[in-house]
Amino acid sequence: ELKATMEPLHPADIAEVMDDLNMDEAKYLYLLLDGEKASDVLIEIPEHDRKRFLKVLPPELIASKFIEYMDSDDAADIVADLDEDLKQEVLKEIEDTEQAGDIVDLLEYEEDSAGGIMAKELVSVNENWTVATCLKEISKQAEEVDEIYYIYVTDDQQRLKGVLSLKKLILNPTNTRIPNLYDADVKSVRTSARQEEVAEIMDKYDLVAIPVVDDIGRLKGRITFDDVIDFVREEAERDYQMVSGITGDVEPDDKPWELIRARFPWLLIGLIGGIMGALVLGNYESEISRVTELAFFIPLIAAMAGNVGVQSSSIVVQSIASGVRDVSTTGKRLLKELLVSFVTAAIFAVLIFLYNYFVQGDINLTLSVSISLFIVMLYASFFGTLIPLVLNKFKVDPALATGPFITTMNDILGLFIYFGVGKMFFDFL
Amino acid sequence: ELKATMEPLHPADIAEVMDDLNMDEAKYLYLLLDGEKASDVLIEIPEHDRKRFLKVLPPELIASKFIEYMDSDDAADIVADLDEDLKQEVLKEIEDTEQAGDIVDLLEYEEDSAGGIMAKELVSVNENWTVATCLKEISKQAEEVDEIYYIYVTDDQQRLKGVLSLKKLILNPTNTRIPNLYDADVKSVRTSARQEEVAEIMDKYDLVAIPVVDDIGRLKGRITFDDVIDFVREEAERDYQMVSGITGDVEPDDKPWELIRARFPWLLIGLIGGIMGALVLGNYESEISRVTELAFFIPLIAAMAGNVGVQSSSIVVQSIASGVRDVSTTGKRLLKELLVSFVTAAIFAVLIFLYNYFVQGDINLTLSVSISLFIVMLYASFFGTLIPLVLNKFKVDPALATGPFITTMNDILGLFIYFGVGKMFFDFL
Ligand SMILES: [Mg+2]
Ligand SMILES: [Mg+2]
Ligand SMILES: [Mg+2]
Ligand SMILES: [Mg+2]
Ligand SMILES: [Mg+2]
Ligand SMILES: [Mg+2]
Ligand SMILES: [Mg+2]
Ligand SMILES: [Mg+2]
Ligand SMILES: [Mg+2]
Ligand SMILES: [Mg+2]
Ligand SMILES: [Mg+2]
Ligand SMILES: [Mg+2]
Ligand SMILES: [Mg+2]
Repeated sequence: ELKATMEPLHPADIAEVMDDLNMDEAKYLYLLLDGEKASDVLIEIPEHDRKRFLKVLPPELIASKFIEYMDSDDAADIVADLDEDLKQEVLKEIEDTEQAGDIVDLLEYEEDSAGGIMAKELVSVNENWTVATCLKEISKQAEEVDEIYYIYVTDDQQRLKGVLSLKKLILNPTNTRIPNLYDADVKSVRTSARQEEVAEIMDKYDLVAIPVVDDIGRLKGRITFDDVIDFVREEAERDYQMVSGITGDVEPDDKPWELIRARFPWLLIGLIGGIMGALVLGNYESEISRVTELAFFIPLIAAMAGNVGVQSSSIVVQSIASGVRDVSTTGKRLLKELLVSFVTAAIFAVLIFLYNYFVQGDINLTLSVSISLFIVMLYASFFGTLIPLVLNKFKVDPALATGPFITTMNDILGLFIYFGVGKMFFDFL
Repeated sequence: ELKATMEPLHPADIAEVMDDLNMDEAKYLYLLLDGEKASDVLIEIPEHDRKRFLKVLPPELIASKFIEYMDSDDAADIVADLDEDLKQEVLKEIEDTEQAGDIVDLLEYEEDSAGGIMAKELVSVNENWTVATCLKEISKQAEEVDEIYYIYVTDDQQRLKGVLSLKKLILNPTNTRIPNLYDADVKSVRTSARQEEVAEIMDKYDLVAIPVVDDIGRLKGRITFDDVIDFVREEAERDYQMVSGITGDVEPDDKPWELIRARFPWLLIGLIGGIMGALVLGNYESEISRVTELAFFIPLIAAMAGNVGVQSSSIVVQSIASGVRDVSTTGKRLLKELLVSFVTAAIFAVLIFLYNYFVQGDINLTLSVSISLFIVMLYASFFGTLIPLVLNKFKVDPALATGPFITTMNDILGLFIYFGVGKMFFDFL
C-alpha cells in the first residue's frame, strides 16, 4: 500500500518525503521502489543524506539498484564520492559494461570542468544519413536518453558538425539528406572548459543543452540546463554566504553544530580584528582621556569604513562572477571606483562636518572627524576594489575578500587614520 | 559589407557589439538587420539602452520592425515599458491582429505573475487526434514557436489534459491515438502564480517550459526556462547587493553617478547610526574619561554585533528566498538560532575573557567586556533572525533587513549594552 502511494509521485516529491524519515524507514522505502524510480530519488536527496545512506548498503546493491539505472553524469558523481575501496567494488559489480565504461571515462575529467559535469547520453546522427535513417536511429538511441532536446550531427570520425532540431526533422520529407537541414553554427565547449564558462555560454545563447567536444572536435557528451542551474545556484548561494560571513555551504535546517562551525571563522576574524583595534586605541590612550569626544566617533568611522569597503568589494566580486573577466579593464575600473569614492566620501565628509559644526561646536573635533572620514572612505573603497581583483588574479576566490574580512581590515586601518588625524589636530593646532 | 559581417552572428553577439556604439551608429545598424534579427537583438540589449533607443523611433517603425517579429512575452514587456501615448500608437500600428491581441491580453496580467511572464506561443494538440493529425497540426503551429520543448494536450474546451514529448510522437505509429501516449501528470501553474513560485516548480521538476492555465484549467500560455533563469539571476543579484549595502540594480559598467546613488542610502543609514552611536557614547562621557580602557573595546563590540547579526539575518533571508515558507517552523527556527547563538556567544565570551584576563589584567574591564560581548551577540543574532521573518510576514522584502541595516542597529544597541554593563562593574563593584 505504501508502494502504491509512492509510485505515482515525482522523484523530487518522494525525496521530500524521505527527508522526514529515519535511516531504516528510508532504506525500507528505497527497497520498495523500482530501480528507475529509486535511482531518480537518490539523485534528488541532499548530498549529505545520500552519502550516509550509501555507507550502509552493500556494493552489489549500490550497483544493481542505483548505478545501473542512472544517467552517466549522476552515476559518475556518486561513484566519485565513494571511498576508494567501495568505489572499486561498485565499479566491478556494474553489469552493464557500457555504463561502467562511461563512468570510468567520466571519472578521468576534472570535477569542475565540462568533462566532469557532462553526461554520455545524447542523440547524434551522421551527416550522410537521410531523415528516414535518422528517425530510425533516433528511436534506438532515445531509449537511453530521458530528454532529447537537440540532435547533434557528426561526421564519420565523430567530429561535431552541427545541430538539428526535432522540429526540423518532423517537418521535412523523409528522403531529405541531413546536410540540407542542420545548423552548422552549433555552440559547443571543450571537455576542459571551466563550468562557469559553460554556464555563461548556455545563458548567453539560451541553450537547454550544450555538446562537449575533445581537442580535435569529437563529440564526447552533453551538459543539460538542469545541472548547470544547480551549479549556478550553489555558486550564488556561496557568494551570498561569503559576503554575510558564513563559510561552507549551510542550510537553515542543518544541525546546530554545523551552523556554529560555519559562522566561527569570520567571527574569529572579527574578534582578532577587535583585539587589534583595542591595541591601536591603546596607543592613543592619552589622547582619548584628554579629548574624550574623539572616542564618540569611533563607531561612525568603523561603520563607514566597513560599509564602503563591502560595497566596493561586492560590486567587483559580482562583476567577476558574472563573467566580466577582461583584465585590461581593471585599471579603468579602479579609476572609476576612485572617482565614485571621491565624490561619495566628499559628500559624507561634508554631512558630518555640518552636523559636528552646528551640534558639537568644537572645531578641532569637527575637522578631525570629517577629514579622517573622507580619507577612511577613500582608502576603504580603494582596497575593497583592489583586493578581490588581486585575489582573482592569483586564482583565489575573490568572494573571500567580501564581508567580514574587508570590514575587519578597514575597521583597524580606519582607527589608525582617525586617531592619526585627530592627534594632529589636537596636538599641533 | 557591414550587413554581411553581422548576418551570421547570433543576436546575443550583435547586442554585445552594439554596446560599444553610439546611438546613431546603433540606429544605422538596426535598420540594416532584417526584422527577425533586429527584434532578437533588441531583446538582448540592456533595458536601459533599449528604452533610450525606442524613444527616438517613430511608432510605426517600432511596430513593423520590432514588435511584429517578437514572441508575445517580449513584445508585451516592451510595449508595457512605453509611455502611455506611444503605447497606444504602437498597438494601433501592429498589422498582425493576432499578435496585437496577444499583447493586449498579456498586458492584463500583473507584471510579476505567471501571466505577466508567459508567452502565448506554444504547441498544443487535441486529445482526440491521431499522431498523424498531430504531426500535421504541429508543423503549422511550429512556425510561430522558436522551440517546441513540449506539446500540450487539451480537450475541446482548451483545458489542459497532459503533456506529450516529441520523442514519443516520433517513436509511435502514425495511427496511434493521443490518449494512449500523453502523460496526464503535467505540472502547470495558474496565471496568478507568483514568478518565484514558477521558478521553484520548474527548478524542482527540471522543466524546460511550464504551461500556464486559468482558474478553470484552460491553457493560456507557457513560460520557458530562459526567462525564468534571467529572473532568478536578477533576484539573486539583488539580494547579494542588498546584503552588501547597495540598493537598486547596478552593474560595474553603470555611470559613476548611478553607482553613487545606489550606495548612498545605506551609507546615510551608517552615518546616522554613527551619529546616534556618538550620542550614546556622549552619555557615558564621564565613564570613558575615568576608564579609558572601556573605549578600547568599542570596535570589538560593534564588529561582533554586526557580524553575528548579518550572519543570522542572511541565513533567514536565504531560506525564505529558496522557498522555505513554512510559517509553522518560524518558532522552531528562532529556538535553534537561539541555541546556536548561545553556544557561539559563550565561546567568544570565553575567548575574550582569556585574552583580557591574561593580557590586560584589570578584572572589572575583563568582566565587562566578556559579559557584554555575550549579551550583545545573543541579542544581535536573535534580532538578525527575527526581523527578516517579521518583514516577510508583512510582505516586505526580508533582504532589506540584511547588511548595513542590521549592522547599524546592532552597533547602537551593542554600545548601550556594553556601557550599561561597564558602568555597573566600575560603579558598583
Ligand atoms: Mg534515468
Ligand atoms: Mg561529475
Ligand atoms: Mg539567457
Ligand atoms: Mg534571452
Ligand atoms: Mg544530468
Ligand atoms: Mg564565486
Ligand atoms: Mg523570434
Ligand atoms: Mg505571434
Ligand atoms: Mg511581461
Ligand atoms: Mg533542478
Ligand atoms: Mg535535478
Ligand atoms: Mg521568452
Ligand atoms: Mg529577494
